[in-house]
Amino acid sequence: MKLATLNDGTRDGKLVVVSKDLTRYCAADNIAPTLQAALDNWAEVAPKLEVLATDVEHEAVPCERFHEREAHSPLPRAYQWADGSAYINHVELVRKARDAEVPDSFYHDPLMYQGGSDNFLAPRDDIPLGDTAWGCDMEGEVAVITDDVPMGASVEDAAGHIKLIMLVNDVSLRGLIPGELAKGFGFFQSKPSSAFSPVCVTPDELGDAWNDSLIHLPLMVDYNGEPFGRAEVGVDATFNMAQLVAHAAKTRPLGAGTIIGSGTISNKGEDGGPGKPVSEGGRGYSCIAEIRMIETIYDGEAKTRFMAPGDTVRVEMRDKDNHSIFGAIEQTVVQA
Amino acid sequence: MKLATLNDGTRDGKLVVVSKDLTRYCAADNIAPTLQAALDNWAEVAPKLEVLATDVEHEAVPCERFHEREAHSPLPRAYQWADGSAYINHVELVRKARDAEVPDSFYHDPLMYQGGSDNFLAPRDDIPLGDTAWGCDMEGEVAVITDDVPMGASVEDAAGHIKLIMLVNDVSLRGLIPGELAKGFGFFQSKPSSAFSPVCVTPDELGDAWNDSLIHLPLMVDYNGEPFGRAEVGVDATFNMAQLVAHAAKTRPLGAGTIIGSGTISNKGEDGGPGKPVSEGGRGYSCIAEIRMIETIYDGEAKTRFMAPGDTVRVEMRDKDNHSIFGAIEQTVVQA
Repeated sequence: MKLATLNDGTRDGKLVVVSKDLTRYCAADNIAPTLQAALDNWAEVAPKLEVLATDVEHEAVPCERFHEREAHSPLPRAYQWADGSAYINHVELVRKARDAEVPDSFYHDPLMYQGGSDNFLAPRDDIPLGDTAWGCDMEGEVAVITDDVPMGASVEDAAGHIKLIMLVNDVSLRGLIPGELAKGFGFFQSKPSSAFSPVCVTPDELGDAWNDSLIHLPLMVDYNGEPFGRAEVGVDATFNMAQLVAHAAKTRPLGAGTIIGSGTISNKGEDGGPGKPVSEGGRGYSCIAEIRMIETIYDGEAKTRFMAPGDTVRVEMRDKDNHSIFGAIEQTVVQA
Repeated sequence: MKLATLNDGTRDGKLVVVSKDLTRYCAADNIAPTLQAALDNWAEVAPKLEVLATDVEHEAVPCERFHEREAHSPLPRAYQWADGSAYINHVELVRKARDAEVPDSFYHDPLMYQGGSDNFLAPRDDIPLGDTAWGCDMEGEVAVITDDVPMGASVEDAAGHIKLIMLVNDVSLRGLIPGELAKGFGFFQSKPSSAFSPVCVTPDELGDAWNDSLIHLPLMVDYNGEPFGRAEVGVDATFNMAQLVAHAAKTRPLGAGTIIGSGTISNKGEDGGPGKPVSEGGRGYSCIAEIRMIETIYDGEAKTRFMAPGDTVRVEMRDKDNHSIFGAIEQTVVQA
């Protein structure tokens, strides 16, 4: 089934079930008022939502027209947002651009940071930027939402706790990252509010495209109206989403509604080297930092600038029949 | 006023107003069902809670006996928990123990990490530990809860957004920290669930002891039943709580119910060097790591081991009349 949260003026919005083709919705607030409430009691609530989803599909219940622009992020605020960096190709490029080695541990111990989850942007919200020098970037990613995950859950168990899947634009302030990482405490100011896709879906909704806790489809990232990234999510993933969930749960349980992100989707080129831009027949990039690293490796300096007020980003994923699965994140950078 | 959240079997508990002497409470759920709900609408709700608090003080409403052991952390789960490291003396000791310099920036740019907030421990909950080799430690701290803080708030404005104050035991797994910090993404597995004091209080409740966004009283940390730390919270703070809130809000707004922590309270010795143990007339330490660093500096190696199953920690603060302000965090480490 497909779920969304409509912006009804409240902090947590209103839970609705959306038709597979994203054209209609039916309010689900008689089953659970919010998506968090549904996740808090998922085993009992999900079957009721599935019945409603079937009715929506068959037009057996009165539906309203679904407009993606009226959707909040599925969880407008969450109790946890932890973002991995599962595509080590991205890290390899960062390191290569500054002539540094990738530690061997990065290939078996996932990178993950705790993100701010108190105030997500809606999928069509502007990205407020205080200073262009902060180096605003998008990061196109996949994220999963879990129910309660016990401390020490195995990877296999973790896979079963993945209840919903969505897309993310993990907004990053590249200019603030080096200073923060040098302090040793990780990202904070460099990771402002992120935005999620208008719709989240249960894994079964992806059919064969969900396999081994990865989506086997390309992530479509457009920048200023042009195709910028078409990276295959199922390719070059050093870790799958279940491994990331298990990593997060090693020393403590995860509360229902925990969101775990994949990190920037990043593919190698066909020759195993850096990937080519979409305009040159490559799979492109899911963030600006990556093309800047490739420019640095090849040309000695980065030419593509980071985002400034007026720049737009669009993140979407389509199934094999070219239908949008999650709706589109569409954001414009504005001066804060 | 003093507020607490009783464990009623729900995830977010039940909001109650507690008498100043912590002996009685009156349910506030007819005003706001949970503390988060109160914070979501603080300007409207707080005055109603204040009226109830006055009635509780005058025994003008029916009250029940308040037992600290029945309290959850004031926010059993929160949308944000960001912990600073405002007592640079602690960082100076860490660095001194490994012969490293403290960067000058640490004195004007706060250290802060994003913590997990989906699953706090209750103040009397056991601390589940998977492996003694993880190096379990307590960190006695002060934390504040804010309402909505706009992006870019000044320090002065940030001070006005501090609505509630409480104590924290920020459980830390020292054995996992070096590996995580080396990866560059900050703490994650090394910071499992923290516990907060049974009661949180409005700043006015502290009277003169709340000045310049700091509490001017000692934090009492007992380890295995013996006084371990009596550090003065108002002394040696490189940053106050308003500066930490403003730091957190630099690039994004903070949602209502954001918890910001001070970091381990840490005082220098009277001679400006490392502080002495309480048993030697000093102010002691708010975490085991600190005494281990001092042992390393003086003796070349740390002798005090980290916590193991059966070890207990107690964190409390008393006013000038020796009355407990927030109730006590009392936890025992257990094998997970």
